[in-house]
Amino acid sequence: MSNDPLVIFTPSGKRGRFPVGTPILTAARQLGVDLDSVCGGRGICSKCQVAPSYGDFSKHGVTVAADALSEWNAVEERYDRVRGLKEGRRLGCQATVQSDIVIDVPPESQVHRQVVRKAASARPITMDPATRIVLVEVQEPDMHEPSGDLERLKAALAEQWDITDVAAPLHVLQTLQPALRKGKWQVSVALHRPANSARHDILGVWPGLHEGGLYGLAIDLGSTTIAAHLCDLTNGAVLASAGVMNPQIRFGEDLMSRVSYAMMNPGGDREMTQAVRAAIGDLATGLAGEAGIDPDLVFELVIVCNPVMHHLLLGIDPVELGQAPFALATADSVTLGAAELDLAGVAPTARIYLLPCIAGHVGADAAAVALSEAPGASEELTLVVDVGTNAEILLGDTSGVLACSSPTGPAFEGAQISAGQRAAPGAIERVEIDPATKEPRFKVIGSDLWSTDPGFAEATKDTGVTGICGSGIIEAVAEMRMAGLLDASGLIGGAEATGTGRCEPTGRTHAYLLHDATAEGGPRILVTQGDIRAIQLAKSALYAGARLLMDKRGAERVDRVVLAGAFGAHISPKHAMVLGMIPDAPLDKVTSAGNAAGHGARMALCNRSAREEIEKTVRRIEKIETAVEPRFQEHFVNANAIPHAVDPFPELAKVAPLPIVSFGASGAQPGGGGGRRRRRRA
Amino acid sequence: MSNDPLVIFTPSGKRGRFPVGTPILTAARQLGVDLDSVCGGRGICSKCQVAPSYGDFSKHGVTVAADALSEWNAVEERYDRVRGLKEGRRLGCQATVQSDIVIDVPPESQVHRQVVRKAASARPITMDPATRIVLVEVQEPDMHEPSGDLERLKAALAEQWDITDVAAPLHVLQTLQPALRKGKWQVSVALHRPANSARHDILGVWPGLHEGGLYGLAIDLGSTTIAAHLCDLTNGAVLASAGVMNPQIRFGEDLMSRVSYAMMNPGGDREMTQAVRAAIGDLATGLAGEAGIDPDLVFELVIVCNPVMHHLLLGIDPVELGQAPFALATADSVTLGAAELDLAGVAPTARIYLLPCIAGHVGADAAAVALSEAPGASEELTLVVDVGTNAEILLGDTSGVLACSSPTGPAFEGAQISAGQRAAPGAIERVEIDPATKEPRFKVIGSDLWSTDPGFAEATKDTGVTGICGSGIIEAVAEMRMAGLLDASGLIGGAEATGTGRCEPTGRTHAYLLHDATAEGGPRILVTQGDIRAIQLAKSALYAGARLLMDKRGAERVDRVVLAGAFGAHISPKHAMVLGMIPDAPLDKVTSAGNAAGHGARMALCNRSAREEIEKTVRRIEKIETAVEPRFQEHFVNANAIPHAVDPFPELAKVAPLPIVSFGASGAQPGGGGGRRRRRRA
Repeated sequence: MSNDPLVIFTPSGKRGRFPVGTPILTAARQLGVDLDSVCGGRGICSKCQVAPSYGDFSKHGVTVAADALSEWNAVEERYDRVRGLKEGRRLGCQATVQSDIVIDVPPESQVHRQVVRKAASARPITMDPATRIVLVEVQEPDMHEPSGDLERLKAALAEQWDITDVAAPLHVLQTLQPALRKGKWQVSVALHRPANSARHDILGVWPGLHEGGLYGLAIDLGSTTIAAHLCDLTNGAVLASAGVMNPQIRFGEDLMSRVSYAMMNPGGDREMTQAVRAAIGDLATGLAGEAGIDPDLVFELVIVCNPVMHHLLLGIDPVELGQAPFALATADSVTLGAAELDLAGVAPTARIYLLPCIAGHVGADAAAVALSEAPGASEELTLVVDVGTNAEILLGDTSGVLACSSPTGPAFEGAQISAGQRAAPGAIERVEIDPATKEPRFKVIGSDLWSTDPGFAEATKDTGVTGICGSGIIEAVAEMRMAGLLDASGLIGGAEATGTGRCEPTGRTHAYLLHDATAEGGPRILVTQGDIRAIQLAKSALYAGARLLMDKRGAERVDRVVLAGAFGAHISPKHAMVLGMIPDAPLDKVTSAGNAAGHGARMALCNRSAREEIEKTVRRIEKIETAVEPRFQEHFVNANAIPHAVDPFPELAKVAPLPIVSFGASGAQPGGGGGRRRRRRA
Repeated sequence: MSNDPLVIFTPSGKRGRFPVGTPILTAARQLGVDLDSVCGGRGICSKCQVAPSYGDFSKHGVTVAADALSEWNAVEERYDRVRGLKEGRRLGCQATVQSDIVIDVPPESQVHRQVVRKAASARPITMDPATRIVLVEVQEPDMHEPSGDLERLKAALAEQWDITDVAAPLHVLQTLQPALRKGKWQVSVALHRPANSARHDILGVWPGLHEGGLYGLAIDLGSTTIAAHLCDLTNGAVLASAGVMNPQIRFGEDLMSRVSYAMMNPGGDREMTQAVRAAIGDLATGLAGEAGIDPDLVFELVIVCNPVMHHLLLGIDPVELGQAPFALATADSVTLGAAELDLAGVAPTARIYLLPCIAGHVGADAAAVALSEAPGASEELTLVVDVGTNAEILLGDTSGVLACSSPTGPAFEGAQISAGQRAAPGAIERVEIDPATKEPRFKVIGSDLWSTDPGFAEATKDTGVTGICGSGIIEAVAEMRMAGLLDASGLIGGAEATGTGRCEPTGRTHAYLLHDATAEGGPRILVTQGDIRAIQLAKSALYAGARLLMDKRGAERVDRVVLAGAFGAHISPKHAMVLGMIPDAPLDKVTSAGNAAGHGARMALCNRSAREEIEKTVRRIEKIETAVEPRFQEHFVNANAIPHAVDPFPELAKVAPLPIVSFGASGAQPGGGGGRRRRRRA
């Protein structure tokens, strides 16, 4: 055994013996300790800060002398004078080993540090972005050796960072020469390594040490809303988030009407393509402005979206997605330059990564949900439902994952409902009906009060009560069933049968009067027989999809249900089960993942290997096409009934919606008051 | 030895035994015989036509029976009916082996056929373009296997053509789906393989068999002229050629004045970049129109140019090329998409290849000359001189090649000469002075007559005699020396010393009156002492560069001289040697390569491995920087004298300029009358 000093790194526990005089950074590299450095040990970047510990470390079997490291040197002194070095910190590239030592690597000095999780349910993100910055010293040109500046930069990357196979886009060639000369042949280089590739693309070059940062955008491109997070790619922090309406709405509310628009109007797809690209550019510009950063430092975008949005973004006519067999132009992940999409608000060399699509109806957004929720990594059989106009459904555990899409239609979003409206202030979002009196109470978006609470009228006088949104209609129907106003087939009883005048005749059927706002100039908000039928169709489609996957899997029940999507965040799990939207599961096993697709996008943005992971995962997912499965129709018909006539969870009679992770503008409304909160498991 | 029939292919001589029933195409592939096929043996493309031979082939040791091949089948009959099959031809994919057979592969059925050489001196071009077309049958989409159309196309390329590692740009993704459906799942795919890469990029997709062709542009981007050939990439034919003035001339006549313009005017480099890109786009559009082809089928461009033009084309500020150490932004070859340069007149997916630069003063044009003239492949020590404002000089043989650039200045182009002008109709281009009478005779561009011939005045009445161009002034100075009007130092003698009144005093020196056109309203065309000095400076620089390389090589003489460039095509080798522009060499070893740079561009366009060859060659070339070599100055001073007082080749007193290969608008003027023509070797 060597007599060289022992160096022990925490928290990794990695240890080794090194000759006296070895810099801590060198020891860390040789042991594979995760210690950052941009300048390669030149004492410039300060990324390699470490915290040495002194004294007795009996558990490590060493005692650290006060002079176990070399004394502060001129570089550290200058750095401390100019920028300030935190108490007890040393620069790992300057401090050298003198005797046995214990070195702590603080989280901010770790390259692959984990991003602090905001929600307990979210998968942690380990930083390992596809783009990183290194500082190099480039050989000056020489008339005797007339290589180009780029070739000498490449030689420096190979020699100083062991990085070979480097390519430079034209934009970098155009800026390289002044940067090298301004930096006195020392430049910072942003290097991008695409997924599944050994190649490095230079995305930017700056004179000297670049301190302006490196940023990325995680974008959830929905049919209705485009939401984006602006992330710091060096530490994963979200600097700004925003959402805008998808401007394609003017071409059609839902996806199929946009496909129809493209089919009926020559050039219609190009109009929609331009609209969505411009909106993303505006969103990017706005976020950079909000965060006070230079848009030219946004080097990466990860975009998740459904297949129709995917094709329209790329400028591919979506016509094939509107008809069987729903063929995608490409199902694999797509990597592009920002210039190819003519995107504003980002660096000209920025790279765009679109997650792979699972199938013609199950898009990159579902892939992002699979990345975020990882049903394939779960020991429990997990059902993940992303509810929108189409529901994307994943079912699986470590033995495999199945996926399908089910055409729920827009009823869950308040469309096709007599008093339906978007989730906006004034919309009824929560409903309770007293089983004894058959009297309702409700809450509207924009107020925490129940309609029966004192002050409700005052609190809602600006918005009024204008209609009912998706989560509201689901609760209303479920509550009506539990209050005995509906039979199992979904038929609303008359006043006589139900004992309440709120069940009023409308033609040959009945409707339940939820609220009469005519006194304030508002509407009469009824739940009609047509509304019940629309919800029955939607929930049957969702249930049948889940059931089909369970059949394929040979499962009679699921262990766990995850409701994803902004809408999923607002659904009351109890009401969803009363309605028979989702298979029964223990209530504490029904969780909301919030915007799981957005979280998946952020994972892929911050971690290059997450891209490789989801590409592999998607290839392994078994796709089930509901349209050609005879059992889907069978399940669909059988799922029409509303199963639970009484509250299946009486001890939780008054349950609040699940706490959720907000993602941009489409995020959660705060959960309202009353009742005991459900205990959650970590 | 097997009893299977013997199949012998000519002209390759490859032979092998194959079971009865083997298609000829299959036999050819297994033997590595160069037999084309686009459709992969489906009887669609007719590229695999072969000519079977029947009868006694004693030299091959076989007798071919009349039924040695299968009978015409339905596919061949249909093909013959629809398109016509040449007498004696069979489709190689349809005709099968029945007994011993001799099969000739005609040149048009060979993939790697050689392009017919126009000039004896030009290196032959073997067709092996980076882009080729294949036909594939793609699996239809299926709801049970929801892969994308692109992924199924890739699978088909792998299965039917063994082509893996395929990438599709966005533009192809946008056109793929309609092409597949229109072609009923049979599509032609244009595949591009960049130099030094195993990757294939899809550049275009067409329904069914694409019969529109595949084209490329070889572009010689000079400081003054941009010349381009439009080539058919399937057979190497030049369909159209054209040249336009480089519009950057308005920013400066020579390169250094353009560099100055960029330095003095913020954004000046961008103006020049836009101007040259627009000019190339116009040229491409014009050529496609002239050839009657769709510009969207022009998939490749090869561009050769000097370093300043290279940088200005790419949008790189050329400022570094204007000052020591003349650092290039990049010296390696550059591969780009047409969209990156915003080029019109070509396919949106077209690929642009710029040859590597040799050094900051020795550009991609010199690399193209090295490719075309291949001094490194010569057993004889070969000096290649590309004369322009800068002369690029290559010296070498199989043991190695040296390169330098020498600042000759614009005198050789008629600039800085008192009566100098560009080579245009009316300019004196050939001069002879009778050593006895000291009387001159000359020819002007636009007429084949000598000025002393009857009818000269009539023949030149439209143009007049307006000045003297580069080749004219060289001949004039050399002839003056041989006629005893100049001493070795270049001093013009007075009327008394020379015995001719044409040597008239001008201030303290004398000038020789070549022609007095005042009677016709033209100028008096004199060769002044200043003109002699300008030519001496220019020729000394050229000679000193060549001499420096000879020193480095340790050579006292060269075996062979190649004069390249449009100007080189007009220089009389004898006069060049009298003047001491180039080292002495046997006159029949001095040849003109015409536009060698343009020929090199065409080689790289038609042959992918020529790109790899020149990239390797350029790395091996030893670069000599004249500006830092003390011996260059020494040689320059020593070269000032005009060595030959008498005609060194009296037996060839009246030699015509070398025949040259025309390249676009900057091509040759036809060689004029009088005298015995020099015999040339092939």
